[in-house]
Amino acid sequence: MDTIETILSHRTIRKYKETPIEDAILKQILEAGFRTSTTGNMQVYSIIVTKEKEIKNKLWESHFKQDMVNQAPVILTFCADFNRFNKWCKLREAEPGYDNFLSFMTAAIDALIVSQTVAVAAESFGLGICYLGTTTYMTEKIINILHCPKGVIPITTLVIGYPDENPELVDRLPYEGIVHDEVYHDYSPEAINKIYSEKEALPLTAELLKENNVDNLAKVFTQYRYKKGDNMHFSKQLLSVLESQGFMNNA
Amino acid sequence: MDTIETILSHRTIRKYKETPIEDAILKQILEAGFRTSTTGNMQVYSIIVTKEKEIKNKLWESHFKQDMVNQAPVILTFCADFNRFNKWCKLREAEPGYDNFLSFMTAAIDALIVSQTVAVAAESFGLGICYLGTTTYMTEKIINILHCPKGVIPITTLVIGYPDENPELVDRLPYEGIVHDEVYHDYSPEAINKIYSEKEALPLTAELLKENNVDNLAKVFTQYRYKKGDNMHFSKQLLSVLESQGFMNNA
Repeated sequence: MDTIETILSHRTIRKYKETPIEDAILKQILEAGFRTSTTGNMQVYSIIVTKEKEIKNKLWESHFKQDMVNQAPVILTFCADFNRFNKWCKLREAEPGYDNFLSFMTAAIDALIVSQTVAVAAESFGLGICYLGTTTYMTEKIINILHCPKGVIPITTLVIGYPDENPELVDRLPYEGIVHDEVYHDYSPEAINKIYSEKEALPLTAELLKENNVDNLAKVFTQYRYKKGDNMHFSKQLLSVLESQGFMNNA
Repeated sequence: MDTIETILSHRTIRKYKETPIEDAILKQILEAGFRTSTTGNMQVYSIIVTKEKEIKNKLWESHFKQDMVNQAPVILTFCADFNRFNKWCKLREAEPGYDNFLSFMTAAIDALIVSQTVAVAAESFGLGICYLGTTTYMTEKIINILHCPKGVIPITTLVIGYPDENPELVDRLPYEGIVHDEVYHDYSPEAINKIYSEKEALPLTAELLKENNVDNLAKVFTQYRYKKGDNMHFSKQLLSVLESQGFMNNA
């Protein structure tokens, strides 16, 4: 399938057929991911491929019980991983200095851009995908379920399988809302109103306002979907995971 | 161009022709990026497109004076951006709670997976790309050069333009080195030796050992390329940027 066509037809899929993914196709998709650039070609990431019902069920609980986690044939957990690299260094009598926040970011960046290559590759085979943002909320539980040692932190998850729905393309902000010319140009209130006007006028937005009994879409986000208290709670947990997985030796 | 073919033929390009990128093509590439999944479709990222010689020259200094930054026609800086979303919330009398570490990670994830879609889209047009890892080292300077307000943090940078070199495919670790079956399987010393054996046997590795006067490749990384002291220094700086850009209100 043509690259731009693959990218432009992306939809998040939340309903999957039971059809398994052929091993050869899954391997090809993952190996496509390997070609992605990584810092210094260190490849400080790992991909955990989970298919077993029992383990998927534990992941389902961690990912806020979203049914697709049990339904889809394959769950891919992308981890920032300095464990492998550190072990290699130590075996070669080279002293690794990767137990700090910068190294965590380096490894997280590797894992994330690889995950998107894998997503695009999967979609080019007619597979559907869904990213699970819950990975950074429930990191400690996922670490336990997937037996991640020190130096390894799950960063994102892809649910992957053959789609059992065919949703429409979802709205996006206009070009002027996202792209800045030469340097960052901060937004005036008029610009903000314009950028969000199309989204605010969608029938989906009207439904959400009714459902949540609020008078605008921003409040759906701040009062229901991504709340300050939850964000602060998960922030503390994630920072504590960085500490316990060995990435906060900064001073 | 076929998607898998595009992905499998990725090479990092470090030499660029002066040929500018046609506006229509650049726009198509960026709009392809917009289709990428983001958390809750919030799209909490921005892309800064820099072409002006003077600003590129300042970026070149920040990115460790890598010549391609001046040479390539376009520099794309991908930023984690809650500024736009926060402004929208405040205009709608919704109280944003996105000044914490989790929200930073959410926005960074958005920016990063979008950057990889843009990279793949660019390559499908015959353009070359190079990621600049220096973005997370020199974040504060880049923030100043690109006038990023509070809530905005540059996370990665793509150099982009028509290639003036045709490098060979670079080595990658074997499948067994990266992929874990069901859960994470920690590496034995024998496994580590096997995973790194091909890389260690490359002619490029022999060259690097001679150049750096060390007896193995791991030491090239720990003693020259990614040193503990540098990593700790940049960790402190990056954490201080998170604080000053308004993402560390966690308690």
